[in-house]
Amino acid sequence: MVNSNKIQSITLRRGFFIPSSEIYGGLAGFFDYGHLGVMMKNKFIQCWREFFIKSVENIYEIETSIIQPREVFEASGHLKSFVDPITQCEKCKSIFRADHLIEDAINKFVEGLSPEELTKIIKDAGIKCPKCKGKLGDVRLFNLMFKTFVGPLGNKESYLRPETAQGIFVNFKRVLSATRAKLPFGIAQIGKSFRNEISPRHFIVRLRAFNQMEIEYFVHPEKLDECEYFKEVENVKLRILTREAQEKGGEEIVITAKEAVEKNLLPNKTFAYFLAKEMIFYQFLGIPFEALRFRHMLPEETPHYSKGNFDLEVKFDFGWKEVVGNAYRTDYDLKNHMKYSGKDLTVTLDDGSKVIPHVIEPSFGIERSIYAMLLYVLREDKKRGWDWLDLKPKIAPFLAGIFPLVTKDKLPEKAREVFNMLKGCYDVFYDDRGSIGKRYARADEIGTPVCITIDYQTLEDDTVTMRDRNTTKQVRVKISELKNRLWKVLQEGKLF
Amino acid sequence: MVNSNKIQSITLRRGFFIPSSEIYGGLAGFFDYGHLGVMMKNKFIQCWREFFIKSVENIYEIETSIIQPREVFEASGHLKSFVDPITQCEKCKSIFRADHLIEDAINKFVEGLSPEELTKIIKDAGIKCPKCKGKLGDVRLFNLMFKTFVGPLGNKESYLRPETAQGIFVNFKRVLSATRAKLPFGIAQIGKSFRNEISPRHFIVRLRAFNQMEIEYFVHPEKLDECEYFKEVENVKLRILTREAQEKGGEEIVITAKEAVEKNLLPNKTFAYFLAKEMIFYQFLGIPFEALRFRHMLPEETPHYSKGNFDLEVKFDFGWKEVVGNAYRTDYDLKNHMKYSGKDLTVTLDDGSKVIPHVIEPSFGIERSIYAMLLYVLREDKKRGWDWLDLKPKIAPFLAGIFPLVTKDKLPEKAREVFNMLKGCYDVFYDDRGSIGKRYARADEIGTPVCITIDYQTLEDDTVTMRDRNTTKQVRVKISELKNRLWKVLQEGKLF
Repeated sequence: MVNSNKIQSITLRRGFFIPSSEIYGGLAGFFDYGHLGVMMKNKFIQCWREFFIKSVENIYEIETSIIQPREVFEASGHLKSFVDPITQCEKCKSIFRADHLIEDAINKFVEGLSPEELTKIIKDAGIKCPKCKGKLGDVRLFNLMFKTFVGPLGNKESYLRPETAQGIFVNFKRVLSATRAKLPFGIAQIGKSFRNEISPRHFIVRLRAFNQMEIEYFVHPEKLDECEYFKEVENVKLRILTREAQEKGGEEIVITAKEAVEKNLLPNKTFAYFLAKEMIFYQFLGIPFEALRFRHMLPEETPHYSKGNFDLEVKFDFGWKEVVGNAYRTDYDLKNHMKYSGKDLTVTLDDGSKVIPHVIEPSFGIERSIYAMLLYVLREDKKRGWDWLDLKPKIAPFLAGIFPLVTKDKLPEKAREVFNMLKGCYDVFYDDRGSIGKRYARADEIGTPVCITIDYQTLEDDTVTMRDRNTTKQVRVKISELKNRLWKVLQEGKLF
Repeated sequence: MVNSNKIQSITLRRGFFIPSSEIYGGLAGFFDYGHLGVMMKNKFIQCWREFFIKSVENIYEIETSIIQPREVFEASGHLKSFVDPITQCEKCKSIFRADHLIEDAINKFVEGLSPEELTKIIKDAGIKCPKCKGKLGDVRLFNLMFKTFVGPLGNKESYLRPETAQGIFVNFKRVLSATRAKLPFGIAQIGKSFRNEISPRHFIVRLRAFNQMEIEYFVHPEKLDECEYFKEVENVKLRILTREAQEKGGEEIVITAKEAVEKNLLPNKTFAYFLAKEMIFYQFLGIPFEALRFRHMLPEETPHYSKGNFDLEVKFDFGWKEVVGNAYRTDYDLKNHMKYSGKDLTVTLDDGSKVIPHVIEPSFGIERSIYAMLLYVLREDKKRGWDWLDLKPKIAPFLAGIFPLVTKDKLPEKAREVFNMLKGCYDVFYDDRGSIGKRYARADEIGTPVCITIDYQTLEDDTVTMRDRNTTKQVRVKISELKNRLWKVLQEGKLF
């Protein structure tokens, strides 16, 4: 089983994550990235970009404003629908998610019910405040968007975006005309979103400020099965938890992407393409097949316009949790923005006809994905005497640490030479504090794939040792070969 | 002179920038990045990171929360002091910056005066509303921070950060313990900041949401002249507009960094180091020496705790404007956060004594820097018949465009082969629309350094033409050499 306590302790101590505004008591639901966290996150994003964007010819990445005016969220439906049902204890004034309370108390699934219905259930079942046993007030809806006002008059009501997607739809026409793209094409966005969650929890899983990577992939409404890239991934195995299995308490099924489309488990090939890519990507990160599944969202969890919602879930220590939401949103978003803005957001086809494309949306949560990865790459190594992270070299904060065996006899100077030679090409660090064993341990603990040690032999023949993180085996190589060897580690994922 | 109209038109049309929420009438002071803008900005940031962070051994980049609680800004002084004086027209209700109004109307510099003093000046000088000639109301202070509330009770008053710096100070102790850094060391942050400007203007220069790159470089209070990197840059020439020159209407002086320290024009070598690096960096971007200057901030523009404030200014079409703020902030920030948080933010030295380090802060505005660069790399080329951007290959959105000469006889297939071979290594695009001349023009207009054309000879001997953006000269090279040639273009900055 994954060890969340240990991962949290390592990543806080070593500077991957820092509770936000901690010296002022913190702000629940907000985390900062320390220096190792920034390096790892940037690499994680770059891997994702290469895997999902650069591998396809026409997905265009944009970056839109975090603050958007009220009009955008009227059109998107967030003002009305991006709400959670809450209830407040009349005694201790604590606030709770009403649906979660009911689920916890009487194990009843209540997604989609109205505040009145929830209030009635709480009363009928006699559910009390979990903290003080006080009486719970009527359920009301709480909008999760952070509100602010723009301009000196303070009258321009605006919101921090709860997802990056709306910035994509709003800019659709501009991107289309600047890129001269033809269907199918995608627009991607990587960036921060904000949700005023009632109860942030599970370390960096449910945050109030988090990073997303979203793709809106626009397709001719009649051509969702003509995905040219599908062939590359059609034999990828997916684990799917069907609606039937959820209702009857059944298990996940294992099925190829191709079969899943043929059996109408998935709505179309374009949709299945993204699911298959996700399976590959999350396994590449180090999460095992058995800890991944696509859950078909239940009807009451699915918006009326959606023609298919499958969450990629990972098995955390506290249970299964979504890391990617996949939705076949049809033309709902563009149509609404056309209606509310009065602007033409259609695409003109080669024959001159106009069409509102359908959209497939894979939406990745960065922090929860990174946390899931970290949980599964932790190696609690009794034999070695310390824990280490089996991070992919392309993801690890540093590719190599560079150590002089001892801090005398010109070894530090030589080690600095090696460090200076490599630092322009790779993320490497220099360390000469403590015994060489302690330095290996510190490097392993942050997942550094290679340790390079400069010893007395180096002074004689310009060779150094390269130590492999996973096996602790060493090999002697010429300094002049280091750049190429490290390049190979990056490409092949390991030294040996 | 720079041509801002043309740069704005090119960058909007080609998808570098997009007015935010444009289909809903836009939101003044907010801009989005289109796909070319994202690519260029990411490269711009990467260049900066290599130049300012990776070139120094111990600057650590972190990423902190955009939303911070009220306590942070009480300690930093922003709640009290991050204000602009405003006045509202009693007739048309327009709001103006009172200080700007006065400066425009009677050419009087009023920075640092109180609202009462400004109100008196407006009355005495008979200044009226510039829009409707109505009577202006009393001057009051307007805080530029965007406020929001965290949590379902709506009682946790918080703000969108107006600068990334406070996140650094608040995390100082955590970074120190995770990195085990010794003085001097720096903490950097790249990210968005938000200021509710009274009147956003000048395209992407004065925005309400913008990106910053900030370094807080912490130094022993008595060792600011012991900067080990200063020697590398001591002979770099700086242009400085002294306070005296500003008061007497004099000119900038040209002086080396070393001389500037010796003559006490700059407070110390650590400070001078950053100024020299900035001179190199902005000239590398393509802004000429004559369009850059460091303006010594006047006493009334300088906070009481500061021991030196120099803005790096660029000459825009509308005048000189700050792109980097440099401040020697002493121990003001850490001391205040110690006081308000009650936490120990001192550094323990090797001898066991404790010290509150002093800090040098270079603070870069990303959008205005990029805009300044674009203005100066625009080449209005009558001879060629179209405009092009002389962007550095490391900054240009794409390194190369790949074109089949014609769209028949297997040339597109061959061109796609070349494209697929290169796209894993570099940012390249494929284009087969329109004449080859039009494709060159489109590539030039977004600053693409190299165009690679696949023609009939390619099918015979596997060679292609590489065309240099700046000279339009071509050279024939083997396809197998393309990767290396493009690598050289990146490193050397040009094909020829």
